[in-house]
Amino acid sequence: MKVLITTVPFGDKNSAPLDLLDSNDIEYLINPLNKKLTEDELIGLVSDFDVIIAGTEKISDRVMEKASNLRIISRVGIGLDSVDLLAAEKRNIKVSYTPDAPAPAVAELTIGMMLTLLRSVHVSNSQMHSGEWHRFFGRRLSKVVIGIIGIGRIGQRVLEHLQGFGNPRILVNDISIKDDISDRFNVEWVSKEEIYKQSDIVSLHLPLTGKTKNMITKDQLLLMKSDAIIINTSRGGIINENDLFEIMQSGHLSGAAIDVFDNEPYNGALNGVERCLLTAHMGSMSVDCRTQMEMEATEEAVRFLTGKILEGGVPDEEYEVQRKGL
Amino acid sequence: MKVLITTVPFGDKNSAPLDLLDSNDIEYLINPLNKKLTEDELIGLVSDFDVIIAGTEKISDRVMEKASNLRIISRVGIGLDSVDLLAAEKRNIKVSYTPDAPAPAVAELTIGMMLTLLRSVHVSNSQMHSGEWHRFFGRRLSKVVIGIIGIGRIGQRVLEHLQGFGNPRILVNDISIKDDISDRFNVEWVSKEEIYKQSDIVSLHLPLTGKTKNMITKDQLLLMKSDAIIINTSRGGIINENDLFEIMQSGHLSGAAIDVFDNEPYNGALNGVERCLLTAHMGSMSVDCRTQMEMEATEEAVRFLTGKILEGGVPDEEYEVQRKGL
Repeated sequence: MKVLITTVPFGDKNSAPLDLLDSNDIEYLINPLNKKLTEDELIGLVSDFDVIIAGTEKISDRVMEKASNLRIISRVGIGLDSVDLLAAEKRNIKVSYTPDAPAPAVAELTIGMMLTLLRSVHVSNSQMHSGEWHRFFGRRLSKVVIGIIGIGRIGQRVLEHLQGFGNPRILVNDISIKDDISDRFNVEWVSKEEIYKQSDIVSLHLPLTGKTKNMITKDQLLLMKSDAIIINTSRGGIINENDLFEIMQSGHLSGAAIDVFDNEPYNGALNGVERCLLTAHMGSMSVDCRTQMEMEATEEAVRFLTGKILEGGVPDEEYEVQRKGL
Repeated sequence: MKVLITTVPFGDKNSAPLDLLDSNDIEYLINPLNKKLTEDELIGLVSDFDVIIAGTEKISDRVMEKASNLRIISRVGIGLDSVDLLAAEKRNIKVSYTPDAPAPAVAELTIGMMLTLLRSVHVSNSQMHSGEWHRFFGRRLSKVVIGIIGIGRIGQRVLEHLQGFGNPRILVNDISIKDDISDRFNVEWVSKEEIYKQSDIVSLHLPLTGKTKNMITKDQLLLMKSDAIIINTSRGGIINENDLFEIMQSGHLSGAAIDVFDNEPYNGALNGVERCLLTAHMGSMSVDCRTQMEMEATEEAVRFLTGKILEGGVPDEEYEVQRKGL
């Protein structure tokens, strides 16, 4: 039984996941290319392995076809847009994930991005490092309208962090209204369109699905206030990257923070937009959350390989999402 | 009666302070050099004026000597390190300030800097804009030890914002222990030395006085953990800039955020330290706080010029600080 670990870095700051594999005499290979694999690169690697401990690389029907021994995909993280669940089901390959572990790190990064963008800290920092001094005006988090689309594990934590910032007006949207959220937080449930129109900050905390892909194109961006800010720490593809670039080039929006991209590693036009705060898919990359994610995914692989009951299996509703193309 | 407004920008995002002067038929001049004035530049400008609505430029005995009509200095902001209060007292020049107005903006900026430094957002952003992709590991605010030196108007607001981030360990220090703070927040009062030794983040919220100048030199920086972070949004000179540069060049400290400098506009060695997050004295520069500061300082000037009772007079203890060289 052999494990392919595709996600990198892995076991880098805390070797516990690798120790766990070692102590169970499980053979493993860590992604030798040390970068997010393309579909073809993964096909070239995968033939021998029974288990993949996976990142966000595409695991398609083509990949599974070449992986004739593959019996379980254990995702390090939450998103399942990269995994063809229906192909896995058809081929009797189990899929597990770690949906809770990344949330704390993503939520903290999001608040940092809000404060950075509101005060143009990123632009001032880059100017200062070039010897240029300009005092930017900004706005306060306590005084702006904050729109959050997606009130799941991460969106709820963003709301918790905002509790320490006075009482800003917070607009929220999700597939359905969640009464427990209304009980815990002072929020207004509105349509996505109202969030775009009324918010000074729009932050996305959604999975990438058929329904959310290209959810935000030029049309939605143009509904936003000219000095609004948009933040995407969820998945590339939810905001159309080209449209965001064109809109910002035209002067619309006062800033954007983008941690996730259509193609990663990213190297594209947004690099040229100074007021666009860019990070390298680091949402979950706090040492504690990353270790938790790697550990949970590894424990699940070990459970499978030692004949124990799985704990992180992807629920039916995720298969339904892909089945219905939602 | 003529007013010299030295601080810039002024009335830029909200013209209310200028409107107030106009509606009282008060003649004014806004700093024609449009930058922080040196002592000599101020001496060259000041001779005609009865009132200065002042920024952080040095208003020394030499300046006051040339300002033979000067009767009140109305500071836009809180720090009084720039004003020779004893010279003003001797020459019967009143001094007022706006100590509450900047605090909310400074506290929010500080939290943003903490989150940015913990996740290396500033370094990733600069790499991404150069087409380089590296996923940095980071730490979470909820999980680190936070040391705050100075629990006044700003330090208290920093504590409030931290309430939304779980229950991190918070060490605090001030001239004396404040029981109301211990009642409101879960903090530990410790010596400054213990803060340096134990904290992952050290944040300064102090005035610049004889006692705080060079409070943090190489000795204190070396007490800090090798991966700790230091933040100064208070006044330049409290951390010795050269020592900070040398310490960071040697690889000590994982990051620093510096908004205030010995000489502003700043253009110095810290520009070359990538993990140093630099901003252009923007702590108070949210539109709401800046407007509040400008308005309060202008109202005080108008009160003086229309024979009303002053409301923002600097309290005796500030004169004592300078008298005793504290």
